[in-house]
Formats: sequence, C-alpha cells, structure tokens
Amino acid sequence: MPLFEHHVFVCQNSRPAGAPRRSCTADGNSELHTRLQQLVREAGLGNKVRINKAGCLNQCEHGPVMVVYPEAVWYGNVTSDDAKEIVQSHLVGGKPVERLRIADDCLNNPHCPHCG
Amino acid sequence: MPLFEHHVFVCQNSRPAGAPRRSCTADGNSELHTRLQQLVREAGLGNKVRINKAGCLNQCEHGPVMVVYPEAVWYGNVTSDDAKEIVQSHLVGGKPVERLRIADDCLNNPHCPHCG
Repeated sequence: MPLFEHHVFVCQNSRPAGAPRRSCTADGNSELHTRLQQLVREAGLGNKVRINKAGCLNQCEHGPVMVVYPEAVWYGNVTSDDAKEIVQSHLVGGKPVERLRIADDCLNNPHCPHCG
Repeated sequence: MPLFEHHVFVCQNSRPAGAPRRSCTADGNSELHTRLQQLVREAGLGNKVRINKAGCLNQCEHGPVMVVYPEAVWYGNVTSDDAKEIVQSHLVGGKPVERLRIADDCLNNPHCPHCG
C-alpha cells in the first residue's frame, strides 16, 4: 500500500537566462508548490497527500510541470492559479484535471506539436 | 501508461548542524543520486528510468531515503554503496531490495522502533 494516496512532485528547476530549454521556476522558488501545500492542508489531507519539491523532471518544453504518483499523471503549463482545481478535482476528488494533462505522446517527445 | 518504468526520487535535503531531524545529505549533494544516474545509463535504461532529485520526503528518521514510483517502494539508510544492488535488482530486474526497504509500519511513524 502506498504511503501517500497522492505524492505530488513539483519541478523547481531554474536555468540561466538564454538557456535552450524552459525553466519551471524563475529562481528555484515555486508559488505553485507553496499554494498546493496550503490547499492540501486546508483540505485536511496533510497525512494522505504530500506536495514535494523536485529537481528537473525533464519535460521542460511543457514547463512548469508536475507529476502525481502513484497514478503517474503529468501536468504541464501549470501556474499557481491552477492549484485549487488540481487539489479539489484530483487530490480530493480523484479526478485528474484533463485540460492540464500532458498528452502521453508529448511526454519525452521533443518533436511534439507543443515543442520547438 | 507511466512515462517511466521507474521514477526514482532521491532526497537531497540538508539541515543545519544540531537540527532535531536527520539530514539526507550533508550539503545538498548526493553521491547516491550521482551513482544511480551513472549506473542506470550504463545499464541502457536512460529512457525508461529517471533518477530524480527531490526535496524532503519527510521520512527523515530513516534517512538517507529514496522512493521508487509508480510502485511506491521506499528505501532507507541508503548509501552510494547500495546503488549497484538497487539498479541491478530493482530497476533492471524488477525485484526490490528487501534489506533496504522501510517497513510499511515505520513510514510516517515517529514511534517506530528505528526512530528516537
């Protein structure tokens, strides 16, 4: 049995200005991470859901990105404004937010229509 | 289908000297992370397995810790000397390394026999 019903990893990666791949945060600080933490606590899920910081998740072209395990649901172009919907729909309700999901055929694919 | 057959998160957390909870790294650099990355590449699993850095995974009493998703297998007291066995047995062979697993009833339990 997994320790956490949902274990969320939010990319904190930051690259120098002019780097060829996108940064998920400007300076290593993620307002998205902070907001998700707050909302999970407010929802009373502090023991069941962990909002974790992560290094580069290597889906930079879709950044800012995050992934939810054990279900392996990937979200891209996520901002702190999306945190409430992710918490309510996915982490509380168990229903992933389809509009934010990175399509399976875009993952690890630098030639997907959203890259380049 | 998960993007990665195994997505490994290695805690990089470091606390000031004298902090009440254990640090998973002395200075935010993890030889374990580096070694796992090297061995996964050497095993030809670079596209199937990702070795990721993570912030605090909150199982500090068992640190250094890491977790492997989507199977949610937690390892504790792991050193870089354990990397080869983890890669060969678990990430290549699909068989978790039982001697390093954190027992289910120790996870999130500050009163487990290994804590305090």
